[in-house]
Amino acid sequence: MLHNILLLFVGLLSLEHVSFAEVPSSQIVNITETREYAERMQNFSRTNFERLEKVRNRSIRVARSCKELRGRYDEREDGVYYLTTGNGMLYQTYCDMTTAGGGWTLVASVHENSIYGRCTVGDRWSSQQGNNADLPDGDGNWSNRNTFGTVESATSDDFKNPGYYDITAEDMSVWHIPNNLPLEFWNLEAAAVLRYHTENRFLRLYGGNLFQLFKQYPVRYNVGSCGDRGPAIPIVYDHGDKESTRMLYGPSSRREFEPGFITFRAINYERAAMAICSGVKPTVGYNTEHYCIGGGGYFHPEQCGDFPSFDYDRLGGYQGWSASREMTEAAVLLFYR
Amino acid sequence: MLHNILLLFVGLLSLEHVSFAEVPSSQIVNITETREYAERMQNFSRTNFERLEKVRNRSIRVARSCKELRGRYDEREDGVYYLTTGNGMLYQTYCDMTTAGGGWTLVASVHENSIYGRCTVGDRWSSQQGNNADLPDGDGNWSNRNTFGTVESATSDDFKNPGYYDITAEDMSVWHIPNNLPLEFWNLEAAAVLRYHTENRFLRLYGGNLFQLFKQYPVRYNVGSCGDRGPAIPIVYDHGDKESTRMLYGPSSRREFEPGFITFRAINYERAAMAICSGVKPTVGYNTEHYCIGGGGYFHPEQCGDFPSFDYDRLGGYQGWSASREMTEAAVLLFYR
Amino acid sequence: MLHNILLLFVGLLSLEHVSFAEVPSSQIVNITETREYAERMQNFSRTNFERLEKVRNRSIRVARSCKELRGRYDEREDGVYYLTTGNGMLYQTYCDMTTAGGGWTLVASVHENSIYGRCTVGDRWSSQQGNNADLPDGDGNWSNRNTFGTVESATSDDFKNPGYYDITAEDMSVWHIPNNLPLEFWNLEAAAVLRYHTENRFLRLYGGNLFQLFKQYPVRYNVGSCGDRGPAIPIVYDHGDKESTRMLYGPSSRREFEPGFITFRAINYERAAMAICSGVKPTVGYNTEHYCIGGGGYFHPEQCGDFPSFDYDRLGGYQGWSASREMTEAAVLLFYR
Repeated sequence: MLHNILLLFVGLLSLEHVSFAEVPSSQIVNITETREYAERMQNFSRTNFERLEKVRNRSIRVARSCKELRGRYDEREDGVYYLTTGNGMLYQTYCDMTTAGGGWTLVASVHENSIYGRCTVGDRWSSQQGNNADLPDGDGNWSNRNTFGTVESATSDDFKNPGYYDITAEDMSVWHIPNNLPLEFWNLEAAAVLRYHTENRFLRLYGGNLFQLFKQYPVRYNVGSCGDRGPAIPIVYDHGDKESTRMLYGPSSRREFEPGFITFRAINYERAAMAICSGVKPTVGYNTEHYCIGGGGYFHPEQCGDFPSFDYDRLGGYQGWSASREMTEAAVLLFYR
Repeated sequence: MLHNILLLFVGLLSLEHVSFAEVPSSQIVNITETREYAERMQNFSRTNFERLEKVRNRSIRVARSCKELRGRYDEREDGVYYLTTGNGMLYQTYCDMTTAGGGWTLVASVHENSIYGRCTVGDRWSSQQGNNADLPDGDGNWSNRNTFGTVESATSDDFKNPGYYDITAEDMSVWHIPNNLPLEFWNLEAAAVLRYHTENRFLRLYGGNLFQLFKQYPVRYNVGSCGDRGPAIPIVYDHGDKESTRMLYGPSSRREFEPGFITFRAINYERAAMAICSGVKPTVGYNTEHYCIGGGGYFHPEQCGDFPSFDYDRLGGYQGWSASREMTEAAVLLFYR
Repeated sequence: MLHNILLLFVGLLSLEHVSFAEVPSSQIVNITETREYAERMQNFSRTNFERLEKVRNRSIRVARSCKELRGRYDEREDGVYYLTTGNGMLYQTYCDMTTAGGGWTLVASVHENSIYGRCTVGDRWSSQQGNNADLPDGDGNWSNRNTFGTVESATSDDFKNPGYYDITAEDMSVWHIPNNLPLEFWNLEAAAVLRYHTENRFLRLYGGNLFQLFKQYPVRYNVGSCGDRGPAIPIVYDHGDKESTRMLYGPSSRREFEPGFITFRAINYERAAMAICSGVKPTVGYNTEHYCIGGGGYFHPEQCGDFPSFDYDRLGGYQGWSASREMTEAAVLLFYR
């Protein structure tokens, strides 16, 4: 018995070691140091069979999106559910059933596995083939049906599930979650670096999802001129605000954009294409490689990657064009509704 | 209401943008411009719950192949089904339940992600390790149990499921489907560049599947002499004919082969090994890298890749040794029965 | 009928061709030449529907580990089962239900796809980014939630399932199984190169699994001094013994370690980190790259890889620092209980 209590103590101590991103600033609560985190963690390591059977029984529900799960079956709990594509392919993903009415399906995450890699293995949202003008689309994953990763590794690896192309949606929600934070903590609001959603049903105008939107606005090198871009959609904040969004990017970047938007397919001075400017709209100057993510297959040689040049003036340096460490070391989770 | 009608109009317009491969010749119908395509597409974006439940209920059937699904349960509809390996591993794939009596299981697709890549990331049917004589088998996927991809991405990425090694079959069927064409359109006959099957039960002589066949005929650099090859099996056409097969490869290649066959494990002048010559049998001259696919880990330096040297005289150039653009930009779907 | 008998004969002949690793020494029985192998193989190629339904019905059991499957449902047969993570993610893996009381969950395998690759594609347990001191953790898979591979390809590719981080365990079991041996033969004792397990519940002290253990002892370049290491745990042999363990590594390596242990996170002279020394504890001299597996992202340039420098004095050469061919061409299967 004493042994068990000692083990429990060791267990609690080891929580200290579960550091995810180092968070240098005091703006962000270190969620791993909260009592709520410790309690959830403690509960989670033991098997709760009642709960386990409950989540397994979710497999009897048939739907193509979390919105349909909420509407048809009144599912109201955040977590992992089963979805089916129109063709009958079964997969599992995370549903946010609470934010702004719920019904949000996680369809993808963009994760920078190494800010030093230049379109190398792991850069699935730009290119794994090296910086190469002969491959202007790079891996092409913004506009194909390839999938990768799993829902539980969405904060430690790139993730894309069939919902990305299969679901017909109206709005998007975006969560920036610190790398490696386990799924069971994602919905603690304090855990997020930034969270927002759109409300104007813009996806109806662009084919119903990002797969279709990026067919209209290809994420491709040399497809347009510097400053060309796709839609910039106003956002509603769920965690953070315009001012905190501004501060997440570098001081030099802040002069170029307006916060309060999500922008699709931006093109920079070198004619490189980026997929998403999260939280901002480029307005003057187009050094978008420092604050937009994803891309085609060719950039300035030192910039190719999933978070192209977020470390231009040193990683997490808060200097010049460098994005903050919080932003650089957080995965970008993309939801549809 | 007017809004909805306008959106519908935008939706229909955007069908134009769903171009897959550019098809320069008039031989091939552009399936995306047909009325049938537009109607299927329109229906598909809305969720039909009755249909969704039907395809999910397919999970109660237990079988190791589509042939068993057809025989035991009289399943007659083309589409995505659940299969189980002899060891109990569950997976999903596409069944062709109509061609020549049906019961065909999709077990793999060979997709060229970049004709410019030389055994780089994405060349899973040759090598992702660079052109390397120290790795004569390359990735070795023709004769191992590794799997990759998903059924819905089989025209946009390499695909291999457990059926490749688990199913004991007699015949093969091959579909060349334009890159990125969605699964729900694969069975439109006009969509295919080429389709054929064998009828002589040749796989009984080679262990029952490609996994076993390629153990007898290794897809390995330097394993044999120029001109050595495995079996060449006569085919029955389901779309196309001998003459259209000939025209799909380059003018110089046409002098070297006889159409109307599928040939396994060809060896070229440089002692490089290829896995499948689709639609043809090499007869005189062995520049098979221009019309055979898949391979070991070492080729002439400019040729290593899943479609080794289909672009020798310019991509889709219809010149010299270059295969046609239709062939080069189509995935090769492999079925067993 | 005669035809069928002939085919059967061809089928039996082809068993000869199913060579996996060449096994040069007489210490190891070539399992593929045994009568038991031939019989299992013969049975396996035909579909046994009763058996197929039985393994599919395992999906109704709900548990987080094979130990729970054995305890709650009295499952006693080795094979493939369904497990569910605490968050509800469903996956399949292999359960060893017999060794030392059973209840062992396969959570990972370490497979060397090419002893000549130097942290290239396929080196998921070290780095796929090249030998790079800027990426001291390499791919980081020893301490993240990424998963890859499938249970049936665990002897032909790297494998990691959610159990690696989700299961709270006490002991480990390790099987060295010749590359490419099919799952249906893994539990033939004679098939293994080496098999052992721990009995002292050491994982209770290190967070309950390798995911937590390697947070305390990071598999990272330059994280400690030569000779630093994590725990070395005594093992109980299930196949092999201390002497046979010694002989599996090179003559020079044998002077440096003591057999009869599994050791975690060893550091060599060049400050490179390795994850597991299987069967041994380094005692004097720290050329651990010749007998420990997995690693961070930076090694001596000629050594980076999943089995870092097992071929130092020629592959399978039994000379100097070279590990035996049996060891180098066997996958390392990791189980929890």
